[in-house]
Parts: sequence; structure tokens; C-alpha cells
Amino acid sequence: MFHTEHCVTIDAPIQYVYDVLADVEGYAKLFPPTQAVTLLEVGPDYQIAKLVVEVSGQIQSWTTRRDLDVVHRIIRYQQLQTAPLLDHMGGEWRCFQLRGEQTQLVITHDFAVRTAVNGLVLGQYTPEQAEEMVRGAVERNSAADLDAVKKEAERCVLSIKDADAPPLPLSSQI
Amino acid sequence: MFHTEHCVTIDAPIQYVYDVLADVEGYAKLFPPTQAVTLLEVGPDYQIAKLVVEVSGQIQSWTTRRDLDVVHRIIRYQQLQTAPLLDHMGGEWRCFQLRGEQTQLVITHDFAVRTAVNGLVLGQYTPEQAEEMVRGAVERNSAADLDAVKKEAERCVLSIKDADAPPLPLSSQI
Repeated sequence: MFHTEHCVTIDAPIQYVYDVLADVEGYAKLFPPTQAVTLLEVGPDYQIAKLVVEVSGQIQSWTTRRDLDVVHRIIRYQQLQTAPLLDHMGGEWRCFQLRGEQTQLVITHDFAVRTAVNGLVLGQYTPEQAEEMVRGAVERNSAADLDAVKKEAERCVLSIKDADAPPLPLSSQI
Repeated sequence: MFHTEHCVTIDAPIQYVYDVLADVEGYAKLFPPTQAVTLLEVGPDYQIAKLVVEVSGQIQSWTTRRDLDVVHRIIRYQQLQTAPLLDHMGGEWRCFQLRGEQTQLVITHDFAVRTAVNGLVLGQYTPEQAEEMVRGAVERNSAADLDAVKKEAERCVLSIKDADAPPLPLSSQI
């Protein structure tokens, strides 16, 4: 069982960041490796979705349950049907208000690689290879995902500021 | 100029974590590489201290100014006299309350390596070597420092719980 935490500072108010994360159907646009998201079930404080994602060049899919704690602005996720190499994958997106209009975003992962059968995971990899592949993917994806959320939340702030800005004076429109 | 962020979840209330971090004189006991701390100046919301620290097997020292924001539970640090390889080093310790009695601790680093003279930093290292040394030290020290603060804050919680516990029944003391 492994536990990792990764974080980033975002120049956007916490509600913007949380809204980007809560929109699971938007993940196909948000995260380049995510090919498709199908919402299977939704309640006032949870979502169950099937994700199709490119991981290390391979198309994989899994079903995830996400519990949304809007008060603490935490989304807990748990794969119900895991990705191929995994016995277990869960964790949290956590948003914290930083001074002013900034947000500290954290993502955590708790995971375990599938048990080897006759010394091999999925009949192909030694446990060490499987572990290295999963850990590498978690490291790369954490950095990429945090960066994607940061860019999208900061883009939202800028687009709203632009919309609020007075129209350009006529002279500069010529 | 580089920016890094590292984080950890601590099973202790935020005030415990902040108190551990605010006690700069306690760093010599808290962080094994820290050999000595001399408080040079102290005000209601800042400290200036000289630290002697073992970095990658070498004893180095620097002077740091720490600005303590007790409301947001953030300590901003800035090296006034930098460690040998550095042109600049600063960052923040940030504490955030997590659900219940947990704390999300974040440390950030903003740093730049000293400019090379005649192609060498300190007359010994190429800029790439110097950068790799500093980045490696920041990675290793971030993980070690977060872990040390986590252990100390969690130890404080346990020791207070133990002090609150009723004395053992006489029969079990025999």
C-alpha cells in the first residue's frame, strides 16, 4: 500500500478550483489523457463515473465513486472497478483557501498493485515492474493533473475579469 | 529560478503543527541535519536566525529571516545570507486545517543557483551540476523535514493524551 501527496498553488479563489474539480464530465476536456467520461450515477453529494484514460500509451478504463464534501471542499475518489494493474486506488482532491484570492490544491493517492499470480502481475510483469509502472504513472499524472486544474481555474478568473472590464474605447477599436 | 511545493498530512490539530514550526530554536532537535540555531533578532512577528546545517555531507550555514503570520498560520522564510551554492532561497511553511483534528502541511521553496564565474559555480561546479545538487537537496530535505514535523506534532498529541489519561490501576503497576 502506497500513499503519496502532491500540491500546487493556484491564483484563483477556492470556489473556482472546487468547481473545476467537481465537474467530472469536464475531465475529458480538462485532462489531455482522459478520452471519455460517462456519468453512471449521481446524487446530491456523490458521482459514479466511468473514465477512459490513456496511461503510459495504453487506453485503460475504470469506474470511480467520488464523494463531494462541499463544506470542506474535498472530493474523495475511490475506484470501484480498478485500472488493470491495481488492486486498489483511492484518494482525495483537497482545496484550501490561501491568503487573498489564492488556493492551495492537494491531491493524495492511496494505492496497491494487484497481487502477482505465479510470480507475475497480469501474466506479464514482475511485482517490482508493476509497482514501478504504477508509481511512475502516479508521479507523472499528479504533476500534470495539478497543472491542468491550475491553468483552467486561472483561465476562468481571467475570462471573468475580461468580461467585467469596460469595453475598449472606440478609438482603440478602429 | 525554481519553485517547488511538497506536502504531508499530519494527525494533529493545526496549532500543534504551527507551534512546532514557530520554535526555530527547536530546529536543532527537530531536524537531524540542523546542528545549531542562534537567534540573532526577534520581534512580535519575525525572527532572524543563523542556522548551521549538514547538507549532502558538508557543514553549511546561512542566516534566515522568518515572518510569522499566526492568523493564516504561514511562516515565510528568506535567506539573508545564503548557503554557498545559492543566489536566492525563500519560501513558506503553510498549515491548513483538515477535517477534524488533522492538518495539511505544505512547504514551498523558491530558489536560484549562484551565477557561474568563468563557467563554474564556486570555482568547482558547472551550472548544471550546481543546479542538480541544489534540486536534489531540496527534494530530499523537503521529504525529511515534513516527516520530522509530522512525527513531532503527532508525538505531542500522544504525550498530551497520555498525560490526560487516568493513572494505571494499581494492579497493573505491580
